[in-house]
Amino acid sequence: MLLKEYLETGKKLVESGIDKYLSELSYPEVIAEGMKYAVLNGGKRLRPILHFMTLEILGCKKEMGLATASAIEMIHSYSLVHDDLPALDNDDYRRGKLTTHKKFGEAQGILIGDALLTHAFYVLTEKNSELSPEKIVEIVKLTSSYAGINGMIGGQMVDIESEGKKISLETLKYMHANKTGKLLRLPVETACVIAGAMKEDRDVLLKYSELVGLAFQIKDDILDIEGDFESIGKPVGSDLEHDKSTYPSILGMEKSKELLKETIESAKTIIVDRFGAEKGRVLLELAEYIGDRNK
Amino acid sequence: MLLKEYLETGKKLVESGIDKYLSELSYPEVIAEGMKYAVLNGGKRLRPILHFMTLEILGCKKEMGLATASAIEMIHSYSLVHDDLPALDNDDYRRGKLTTHKKFGEAQGILIGDALLTHAFYVLTEKNSELSPEKIVEIVKLTSSYAGINGMIGGQMVDIESEGKKISLETLKYMHANKTGKLLRLPVETACVIAGAMKEDRDVLLKYSELVGLAFQIKDDILDIEGDFESIGKPVGSDLEHDKSTYPSILGMEKSKELLKETIESAKTIIVDRFGAEKGRVLLELAEYIGDRNK
Repeated sequence: MLLKEYLETGKKLVESGIDKYLSELSYPEVIAEGMKYAVLNGGKRLRPILHFMTLEILGCKKEMGLATASAIEMIHSYSLVHDDLPALDNDDYRRGKLTTHKKFGEAQGILIGDALLTHAFYVLTEKNSELSPEKIVEIVKLTSSYAGINGMIGGQMVDIESEGKKISLETLKYMHANKTGKLLRLPVETACVIAGAMKEDRDVLLKYSELVGLAFQIKDDILDIEGDFESIGKPVGSDLEHDKSTYPSILGMEKSKELLKETIESAKTIIVDRFGAEKGRVLLELAEYIGDRNK
Repeated sequence: MLLKEYLETGKKLVESGIDKYLSELSYPEVIAEGMKYAVLNGGKRLRPILHFMTLEILGCKKEMGLATASAIEMIHSYSLVHDDLPALDNDDYRRGKLTTHKKFGEAQGILIGDALLTHAFYVLTEKNSELSPEKIVEIVKLTSSYAGINGMIGGQMVDIESEGKKISLETLKYMHANKTGKLLRLPVETACVIAGAMKEDRDVLLKYSELVGLAFQIKDDILDIEGDFESIGKPVGSDLEHDKSTYPSILGMEKSKELLKETIESAKTIIVDRFGAEKGRVLLELAEYIGDRNK
């Protein structure tokens, strides 16, 4: 299976980048250590892997995206650190390990998150010297747009406001399109910037990221009900406990599974139509993997 | 008095920029409103004013720095929002108004701060189209460096770690040089980038910002003891209450006032030596104002 190797190689590559960039930091120790703890935590690195796959299908080397992939993963990690805080989801564990604020303290958790977000922009500008300034500016613009009020933070806020309420499927879609969707679109779109993709390729790849993001979220909601602690690394049923609206709670389990299947099929179809099954192979396998994963 | 007009004009200008950039945001409402609440709060706008003064002494128009000055003020404001959180300073009032998390809720306060920090980078890249991409990249690099672990966040962490401890003058200096100093250096250095300043001018202006930052902090510590609630907009004696090390607590009040005076004299001297008293007039008056202010 091509994908398995790809996931391992991509994970290793981005973690080498993150480790290199964060190892330059040393003081204050608790912030430097906390930043590493928060990012180097056994994540799947889905966003960096999407970035690498997009670069390669467009004819570029993965390494061209090392700084950008690392920065995006830092932003993803900061968002988890802040989401886990007592005032937000109040989670003690993530992927079977203590959350950052439980490990280092609450004030520290807030500042470690702030430091990761800020450092991501440093990495984008300082560690991307192979790219033209024009491309770097475009990448910073996309990153700050998709991670901010009109992206991830907006979705997160709607998520919080929706707790304990019955929300519409439309609101649920808005929430996920922003809370998780924009940060899955970001690695694909920045890779298109780096590679100088033509519009037709870009449109298909962005649509793919949207479908994969949707599939990922539906699967996440399903796993929260049908998964087990050891695999998913957090208590099963936490959505229910927090009274969160999910695909199964709105559509029912059977319809959610159908929607998941259809979404994955659509993602595969548009890749085959544009790039062919051979060239698009890892993207096709990734779409399937997202539906089949148990964590 | 030239300075008074300058402060008013500069304040109006940067607030028009901030208002314009933030008024483009509308949803989720609590985040959009909270961002405005946190930034448009009657602050002195010292950082934007330093940015404008530096641009002008280097022969550029203030307006060239509108996006950068607004972004820096957003970052300054986000840092205050997070500092005020219960896990950090736990302050209910700032400048006589409820702090952002007291007004909007704690989760909201965290996310509003995150959104301001993120949006600052959007403003730097999206609203600076008059600048070359090379200059924008340099500005983003400086901003993320000075606002992060090796700057403002680092200083803030050391501040927290120092509470309730007797710290050395050296640690106090490190703390202020980073917690507040780097964000006073930033507007001066980014103005030098925008103006394409020669090294000799840049060095003097950066030294000036360092001295002004030091003076500002000493005066802040003095006001926390000798000021009054109505002027400073927060309870007098809060440093003492939080058991914080300050210049008066380490050096004593008399020596602190001497150091303040010397620091202001040095700041003025280097400006006169390099630019002359006429060209440097508002910078000289600003240095004096920092020592004389009662809020």
